Amino acid sequence: LSAQRSNEILQREAPAVWASLSDLGRRIHFPRDIPFQAAEARSVTYNGTIGQITDGRGQALRLEGLDLALAGLEPADRNTALLYSPMAGLPELRERWRQWQRRAAPVDRPSSLPIVTVGMTHGVSIAADLFGGLDKPVAVPEPFWGNYRQIFGTRGGARVLGAPLFRAGRFNAGVIEEALAGEPAGTPAVAVLNFPANPGGYAPSEGERAALLDSLRALAESRPLVVICDDAYEGLVHDPSVPKSSLFWDLNGLHDRLTPVKVDGATKEFLFFGGRVGFLTFAHEQASDVATALEDKVLGLTRTSVGSPVTATQVVLLAALRGGGAEREIAELRARMGRRHQVTMRALASVDPALMTPLPCNAGCFVLVELAAGLDADEVRRHLLAHEDTGVIAVRPNYLRLAFCSVASAEIPELVRRTERGVRELAPAVRVGVPAPAPSRLETES
Amino acid sequence: LSAQRSNEILQREAPAVWASLSDLGRRIHFPRDIPFQAAEARSVTYNGTIGQITDGRGQALRLEGLDLALAGLEPADRNTALLYSPMAGLPELRERWRQWQRRAAPVDRPSSLPIVTVGMTHGVSIAADLFGGLDKPVAVPEPFWGNYRQIFGTRGGARVLGAPLFRAGRFNAGVIEEALAGEPAGTPAVAVLNFPANPGGYAPSEGERAALLDSLRALAESRPLVVICDDAYEGLVHDPSVPKSSLFWDLNGLHDRLTPVKVDGATKEFLFFGGRVGFLTFAHEQASDVATALEDKVLGLTRTSVGSPVTATQVVLLAALRGGGAEREIAELRARMGRRHQVTMRALASVDPALMTPLPCNAGCFVLVELAAGLDADEVRRHLLAHEDTGVIAVRPNYLRLAFCSVASAEIPELVRRTERGVRELAPAVRVGVPAPAPSRLETES
Repeated sequence: LSAQRSNEILQREAPAVWASLSDLGRRIHFPRDIPFQAAEARSVTYNGTIGQITDGRGQALRLEGLDLALAGLEPADRNTALLYSPMAGLPELRERWRQWQRRAAPVDRPSSLPIVTVGMTHGVSIAADLFGGLDKPVAVPEPFWGNYRQIFGTRGGARVLGAPLFRAGRFNAGVIEEALAGEPAGTPAVAVLNFPANPGGYAPSEGERAALLDSLRALAESRPLVVICDDAYEGLVHDPSVPKSSLFWDLNGLHDRLTPVKVDGATKEFLFFGGRVGFLTFAHEQASDVATALEDKVLGLTRTSVGSPVTATQVVLLAALRGGGAEREIAELRARMGRRHQVTMRALASVDPALMTPLPCNAGCFVLVELAAGLDADEVRRHLLAHEDTGVIAVRPNYLRLAFCSVASAEIPELVRRTERGVRELAPAVRVGVPAPAPSRLETES
Repeated sequence: LSAQRSNEILQREAPAVWASLSDLGRRIHFPRDIPFQAAEARSVTYNGTIGQITDGRGQALRLEGLDLALAGLEPADRNTALLYSPMAGLPELRERWRQWQRRAAPVDRPSSLPIVTVGMTHGVSIAADLFGGLDKPVAVPEPFWGNYRQIFGTRGGARVLGAPLFRAGRFNAGVIEEALAGEPAGTPAVAVLNFPANPGGYAPSEGERAALLDSLRALAESRPLVVICDDAYEGLVHDPSVPKSSLFWDLNGLHDRLTPVKVDGATKEFLFFGGRVGFLTFAHEQASDVATALEDKVLGLTRTSVGSPVTATQVVLLAALRGGGAEREIAELRARMGRRHQVTMRALASVDPALMTPLPCNAGCFVLVELAAGLDADEVRRHLLAHEDTGVIAVRPNYLRLAFCSVASAEIPELVRRTERGVRELAPAVRVGVPAPAPSRLETES
């Protein structure tokens, strides 16, 4: 598609999407240059299109060291791993990931064929290029992953607007409305929702989710609204009463002026942190005009940011998806994370609330603790590194993020105890409580 | 480093670099958030910093399908492949790539520790973010790889200015001066040089190189000039009299106001097209203040574009670099590409010059042929696909790019013959020459 043709389709068939595009989003498209022309020539006999060095019959010429390192792959995949990926990703992977995404989705909610990105951040960054841009209001519940500010604000020039996700310890369903309260009606806006969340491991209950959806629907009455679902931790919910499915499916079809975008990937769901395989999905039927026009723009952004996606790690992920055992393995892993979560919450229950209080946490990889007033999070972090042999993440202004996903259950109580001790040492003004009893080590990491 | 501290260093110690930075380049820095804090906590016992799911002792928890797919790796690498990469890349890989880069470099030319990018395009895109930006003049010899226009112009808002690399079939050493002739003295500019080139496989001779360097030195007298060396095809030179080394080493130290940037990678040099391992290198001593300040900015751009580099393909490349046989294998491969180049040039020598003429070609993967006036390159391309079972790349306005790197020697004459026949069919106005004799098949691909 030419940029003009894509834009015509969006203007006509998806006016809210069109209204939501950034300047870059309007001018970008996937040019008809080398990858496009090479894709058209895929099946000819005399193929002098693409600049990858092959034996002349589509087989990679291989350096021995690379080839041996890839020896765990099936022969065909081992060849594919060395060659360029199609711009949108390997077709089989896109199909299989779509099935994976939709295994609990209502059948009547359309979704596009996922487009492969270089990890989840690349998906968020492409969404920011498409829908963010200079001065665009971007609403994010607080506290949030700092990279959102870097991506949308520092890099893209948007205004990142926060509002608290919790108020007096309770979920704030109107968080996005609140963040956008100062924005004139009618102006397009973006919201980023990340459930289960990072840095605070939270997923809304059924009632909270319904209230959040009501609020977003009301917001879409007054303006075009893009909602980016950062589904990095999809399904990792430790409270069985809380829905596990992505909010994307609930937003899909909720309102004509609400454009949901799903960013997900293998990073956390398949524990492939080093693979950088992410996906970007729209709420439009695959191969529809609107999905095609949006894909054309995403590929233009992929082409100009990274050239093409990583083939080698796509085939590694594909091997796991083909195997069939992944769903069971992931369920076991989630149960294991659930046990770590339980141990963490139990240990935190006995810390002195005058020093620090955990925020609500029922999901994900992390718990966020709020420090007593007057304490500086980064000062506490550095003190814990220097004096307690303990590492945590400081989240401004006064939170610590504890990653229970990367600590064995048996060591979590000690991590919490050392954190509490460090905080106490830095809080002379705070009432020094009786030292908490040593948390029990009821459970050992299997 | 804070953005402020990096900027102070560059203002004081590298004023030409400072003058060359884009607005984004000035405001970006690597924030002290999760990856920074996790790096600081690397060696503590109780590490609750980073959000990757591990056994609690730094070992990845593995899905069986992923783990088996990576079975060709050494056990330690197999673990590393699943986990997040350090933001700048694996230290051992950076060291080894630096040695690889410098194996023919003059010892007195400083270079930084290469920063890992997601393939070469990501390196170019980061350089564009750093030094390009709105309205910046970016000079590129014509014809050029179309993605430069997309990256610098469509994406970044810069003005891409071309001038011909050849004039009457001879190398135009003043190409960059010519492209920037209309720019007021004193205003910063960027040049992109890609030798061996894509789409036309050319590398300048010793004399041409000297004249080009003179021209660039003269240009730096009048303005801060960033020269991005796109070294994708480094070393792939088929004429033994032509220097193989990167222009980066000649630009390094050439003039105070000239800032060379080296973009290279495993894509073409190690035939790892699907791995997306590239590198960005500056002409400043590793760990110097200026190198550190620039690295800080590059990491800010990596963080906001892709999160972190791909670990799995870094360890695959590392396996090839450790093996020690790579240099010999690459030399053999280059000899093989040299034979294909020879066959291609011989076949082209007998085509009717009234239909098409090859541009000078002594290097790289491609030859560019100029079509007779009045022929449209894309029309010819589509005709070849439809009627000659042959794929080539159309380069506007009237060039075809033939990739001899991906066609077996035995089939190259037929590729050329079909291309010529297709051109003849579309060129009724052109004098129809006597059909060229069938090219000999002197050589067979080994």
